[in-house]
Amino acid sequence: MSDLADRCRWIGVDWGTSNLRIWAMDAAGQMLGERRSDKGMGTLTRAEFEPAFLDLAGDLLPEGRVTPVWVCGMAGARTGWAEAGYRPVSTRALPDAAPIPLDGTDSRIRVRILPGISQDNPPDVMRGEETQIAGYLAGAPEFTGVICLPGTHSKWVQIEGGDVFHFASFMTGEIYDLLAHKSVLRLTLDDMDWSDEAFRSGIDDALARPERVSGYLFAMRAGALLNGASPDVGPARLSGLLIGAELAAARPYWLGQEVVLIGAGRLAEIYRAALGHAGLDARIADGAEMALAGLRAAADAFDKGD
Amino acid sequence: MSDLADRCRWIGVDWGTSNLRIWAMDAAGQMLGERRSDKGMGTLTRAEFEPAFLDLAGDLLPEGRVTPVWVCGMAGARTGWAEAGYRPVSTRALPDAAPIPLDGTDSRIRVRILPGISQDNPPDVMRGEETQIAGYLAGAPEFTGVICLPGTHSKWVQIEGGDVFHFASFMTGEIYDLLAHKSVLRLTLDDMDWSDEAFRSGIDDALARPERVSGYLFAMRAGALLNGASPDVGPARLSGLLIGAELAAARPYWLGQEVVLIGAGRLAEIYRAALGHAGLDARIADGAEMALAGLRAAADAFDKGD
Repeated sequence: MSDLADRCRWIGVDWGTSNLRIWAMDAAGQMLGERRSDKGMGTLTRAEFEPAFLDLAGDLLPEGRVTPVWVCGMAGARTGWAEAGYRPVSTRALPDAAPIPLDGTDSRIRVRILPGISQDNPPDVMRGEETQIAGYLAGAPEFTGVICLPGTHSKWVQIEGGDVFHFASFMTGEIYDLLAHKSVLRLTLDDMDWSDEAFRSGIDDALARPERVSGYLFAMRAGALLNGASPDVGPARLSGLLIGAELAAARPYWLGQEVVLIGAGRLAEIYRAALGHAGLDARIADGAEMALAGLRAAADAFDKGD
Repeated sequence: MSDLADRCRWIGVDWGTSNLRIWAMDAAGQMLGERRSDKGMGTLTRAEFEPAFLDLAGDLLPEGRVTPVWVCGMAGARTGWAEAGYRPVSTRALPDAAPIPLDGTDSRIRVRILPGISQDNPPDVMRGEETQIAGYLAGAPEFTGVICLPGTHSKWVQIEGGDVFHFASFMTGEIYDLLAHKSVLRLTLDDMDWSDEAFRSGIDDALARPERVSGYLFAMRAGALLNGASPDVGPARLSGLLIGAELAAARPYWLGQEVVLIGAGRLAEIYRAALGHAGLDARIADGAEMALAGLRAAADAFDKGD
């Protein structure tokens, strides 16, 4: 038995659409190691999930003991490893009872997938974000305020006394990628440097006249044709316009609120700068750390006595 | 010499990004025939334009006579057959003087490309639409009102006493195609029927809260996940949301104005329905007829005495 397998007591898994990340955890809740793979949920058929997991984690599993595996994210979607459903708002970020373990898996593991959260009016869903939120709330159980999770489908979440109360998703990240790489704007954005000033002007324009954004977008293309390359036709302007439009729509969420951004790297910094420009000082909590903290909260709550 | 070549006095060409359409015209300005090809400007290098034209029109060209060829559209772009530039607003839809013929073409043709129209503030351009506008104005020289040209990049154009005074472009058509075919919404829209009611609800929601459109879009995906297929998550809703957002931004153009839609088929009907739902009765003028009428206006103005 490897030293890691000897010390590993449970495994946390964040299984997104494009990536898979696992953490080996010891008896004291300390992380022994992290591994990643590009075998995201979007690339796998149902039968391929367990082999993909075992490829990455097989040597962490001691024989003769059942290792709990806690999974969050898109692995719980209808076309994922097993459908984990949604719990409607208002709700705690983690379920009240342990999810039922998956049937028929390798005898060394007991796999439980955390459910997402849904909202009826307006219709909305999250899957994976609820675990990051649980991770944040593990360190601030009575938090009341707003959590923003930037990403492909960014989310604004109102938290009331530790409950997920209401939320709204926006397609900002996906629309940015489509416009930057698949639309006529790709001809404009190529090789342009970032400009803080162009970013802020995009935020200002979109916040002031959000209905004009699709006009402002074509004006970037026209401006490039008429006046050549400039920051006003570059990626910072596009980012500012789209995030500004999101801020305009999400204003009831953030205006006058305490806002925590859960995310990582450049994207979280960009959202923090956008909120700062709108007069709000947001804190950043690291997205991967929050996912792991949420998985740990589930393991702590439901694996006692295992 | 073919009968067509004997009677053909000039050729009109509408050369767009994805399609090429030509009309053979007789001495009385009557159309002898129309031909189309999919050799759009987007698929051709500069050297390939003349061969593509001659493939389609070669048998229409008598020997021993120079046939005028009038071209509008993207063939005049920087990467087209030859750059035809832009004329700034406010301006007549057609130039005041005949464009300079292209150098070095086949001796049987004299090719002139009509320039586009530009606007400095906000930056905007059109190329091809100005000829359709000229075609409409040929039949209504003193028109004052608004012309809307739906399409990949739809345009709203204020006409004052026959002049192009101001205009605004929106990426509505391109964004629809990206969302319907490349985004997560493609999973929702597949095989869904059109619903007038869902279309109108999309217009209403976007007109009332245009800043929320990217949220309404994700709500379609969430609604499909939670409640299954319904018109509220289908293409009519997407179309209503995006056209409604455009109408919200273009409101200064159409509110209380006389509006003419230049376009064809389903898209023109959809815009007419959208404007009708917003309380405005727009007329439709056929896009291809207007392009040909504009080319004819150029030939009439500049080929006299040829």
